[in-house]
Amino acid sequence: MENIAWHTHRVSKEARSNLKSQKPCLIWFTGLSGSGKSTVANAVDALLHEQGYHTYVLDGDNVRHRLNKDLGFSDSDRVENIRRIGEVSSLLVDAGLIVLSAFISPFTSDRRMVRNMLPEGEFIEVFINTPLDVCEQRDPKGLYQKARAGEIVNFTGIDSRYDVPENPEIVINTAEMRLKECTQVVLDYLVEKKLPRNSELDEKTVGNGL
Amino acid sequence: MENIAWHTHRVSKEARSNLKSQKPCLIWFTGLSGSGKSTVANAVDALLHEQGYHTYVLDGDNVRHRLNKDLGFSDSDRVENIRRIGEVSSLLVDAGLIVLSAFISPFTSDRRMVRNMLPEGEFIEVFINTPLDVCEQRDPKGLYQKARAGEIVNFTGIDSRYDVPENPEIVINTAEMRLKECTQVVLDYLVEKKLPRNSELDEKTVGNGL
Repeated sequence: MENIAWHTHRVSKEARSNLKSQKPCLIWFTGLSGSGKSTVANAVDALLHEQGYHTYVLDGDNVRHRLNKDLGFSDSDRVENIRRIGEVSSLLVDAGLIVLSAFISPFTSDRRMVRNMLPEGEFIEVFINTPLDVCEQRDPKGLYQKARAGEIVNFTGIDSRYDVPENPEIVINTAEMRLKECTQVVLDYLVEKKLPRNSELDEKTVGNGL
Repeated sequence: MENIAWHTHRVSKEARSNLKSQKPCLIWFTGLSGSGKSTVANAVDALLHEQGYHTYVLDGDNVRHRLNKDLGFSDSDRVENIRRIGEVSSLLVDAGLIVLSAFISPFTSDRRMVRNMLPEGEFIEVFINTPLDVCEQRDPKGLYQKARAGEIVNFTGIDSRYDVPENPEIVINTAEMRLKECTQVVLDYLVEKKLPRNSELDEKTVGNGL
């Protein structure tokens, strides 16, 4: 075996995303339980997928009972939950994908931690700003009722705080908009900032620093 | 907001992989430190990428210091290390990618755990069967020297066991083959079992149950 042939050459993130003709990024949906994060994320995902973009959704459905099944809901476990989701999102972005993550992620510090894991401009924070009373009225999983009854503790919005995002890239209030309008807000942002395929992007970048 | 419009529709794994015209799978490289796992994995990756396949490599470089930075080398931490890598690999496969993971993964039980995380036929175990004395002679990171000197404990092959895979899909001895030949062995297997693009696959599946 010749040693010279055995150095490790890695395929770059740029090469992986070029193959998909897209700019990878992480679209991070944050908001209260029942706010509509996962629904909006999956609707945006379906639309992007239809248009030929290579995407993936991370949410409770595919993370909590698998990768993070060893974690509970203590403060330190919640931080670790978001940390791992951030790292997995980073890997998926590194693989060239447009990633949509939908988690309550109530603390500013945790969302900032994830933002800092990604290169500048590749973290897009979407605040699903649905009022607590609307979320509680929807209560799709009956969790608010349990929290009010004291059967669940440390429930965000009831007895655990939610830090309102200070400078999110996008704000959506699902109580005032139809799903189609909510997804369009995200798409409009992406079209402006992120979605142009690389060939188009080369032209668009001239002059606006994108 | 109309509730009827707010059900969550998920893009399927099949739809994601169809977009990439490929069959996703996890190619799991196991072997001693210095056996050449990561080198072969990255070489196969580069070749697949050149041919237009959507791939990703997981190895120490992008996992140990990020997602798994909280883990040490105790038995329980090693199990957790492989468990998380398995779960992340599953997510990447679910996203439609061909994933190449290169980790010592010395224990049969851990490799079986990962195999069981994936649907039948989507886990391809590649045993990099480079003899210990060859690995120790290479010692690219000086780890064997440290292990022999007692500066590192629980080092696989020295004072911690390596379970030889019983039924790996592929066996490669890097001491006897050039890198190009090693990668070809993996590619040949993939061409036979996995690589056909979906359009070709539809024809090929008739009769051979692939």
